[in-house]
Amino acid sequence: MQFNRRGVMLVIASPSGAGKSSITRRLLAEDDNLTMSVSVTTRPMRDGEVDGKDYHFVSLDRYDAMRNEGKLLEWAKVHGNFYGTPAAQVDELIAAGRDVVFDIDYQGTQQLYAKRGSDMVSVFLLPPSIPELQARLRARALDSEETISQRLQNARIEIEHWGEYDYVLVNDDLDETCNAVARILATGRLTRSRQTNLSVFIKGLQAQIDSLQ
Amino acid sequence: MQFNRRGVMLVIASPSGAGKSSITRRLLAEDDNLTMSVSVTTRPMRDGEVDGKDYHFVSLDRYDAMRNEGKLLEWAKVHGNFYGTPAAQVDELIAAGRDVVFDIDYQGTQQLYAKRGSDMVSVFLLPPSIPELQARLRARALDSEETISQRLQNARIEIEHWGEYDYVLVNDDLDETCNAVARILATGRLTRSRQTNLSVFIKGLQAQIDSLQ
Repeated sequence: MQFNRRGVMLVIASPSGAGKSSITRRLLAEDDNLTMSVSVTTRPMRDGEVDGKDYHFVSLDRYDAMRNEGKLLEWAKVHGNFYGTPAAQVDELIAAGRDVVFDIDYQGTQQLYAKRGSDMVSVFLLPPSIPELQARLRARALDSEETISQRLQNARIEIEHWGEYDYVLVNDDLDETCNAVARILATGRLTRSRQTNLSVFIKGLQAQIDSLQ
Repeated sequence: MQFNRRGVMLVIASPSGAGKSSITRRLLAEDDNLTMSVSVTTRPMRDGEVDGKDYHFVSLDRYDAMRNEGKLLEWAKVHGNFYGTPAAQVDELIAAGRDVVFDIDYQGTQQLYAKRGSDMVSVFLLPPSIPELQARLRARALDSEETISQRLQNARIEIEHWGEYDYVLVNDDLDETCNAVARILATGRLTRSRQTNLSVFIKGLQAQIDSLQ
């Protein structure tokens, strides 16, 4: 029996190269009820990007207004540009029982937790080893050696926050990790606190017992 | 990658007839890592029962000693007999990464939660309706109408405690409910807090990054 439920805010975090994007992409492809949270950003749109799909591209004024009015669940400044998660869209999806996956770092996770902790399920992915992570970053050939070195130093900071996540998985097999995250999401959907009309159903059962007397 | 982990204390509770025994039996048959918690009891052994398997049958003196020495995780008096869960055996299994399933009511669940809450995952099963529950109790033909009536009144009390469980499932399809409970257990095993040597692995990753410099 299915009850109306609140959606899950699924945070998947990892050091760069540990598999977050691949896993998120696959989950989104395999799960119709899951959608990606679309951030706002002040950085210019790049070729091939679609406004409202990759990001909501906004002016700095608009961004400042959203942040000052408390309309962002979390925000960050990266390389001089601002990013943030608009609350309205996420809250609407969650209330409608849709699950939303977030691509945010540990600082974003902390902010989201402070505002919507009870809706969250958080997963932190680790590489099996640092040489393996380095190899993956090189294999995808997106970054210079200097950037890769910087990413590994960032990984160290990110990894220090492993204790703030509900689940910590070592991604040494993409299929296995995907299955584990899918199971975590499936179980997260079942938690009592998300079943919004369970209390109505319970009252019904109790009334049925009382009517027997 | 698998880490050493603490086991899960899986509590499955339900009003009598809502499917707890069938589901527990099937989980135990399908999952080699799961064992049933064996209670102590002061009631006499019945035909066909095996000491140490169905119960640890103990004298009232022995039972009193265990309870007074804090060696029981939870205890109850039912129909003039005492029952209880010995801590030592369960704690050993959990420390060794074995999962233990408990057949206890809401009062036992409360006691266990007070003592071992961080090791617990609790599931409460509901019948789809009271007429359905009544029909199941009649179909198994174990009880008189009077006993069934008493069981339904007990069900009312038990059901009032639905809010104390992590998961509340309506058992309208045995296969589906079994799968859900198996998934809940599988996910419970993955929680960060149960991975006992994750911190060692993390320190290793950090050392690998530091050695790059």
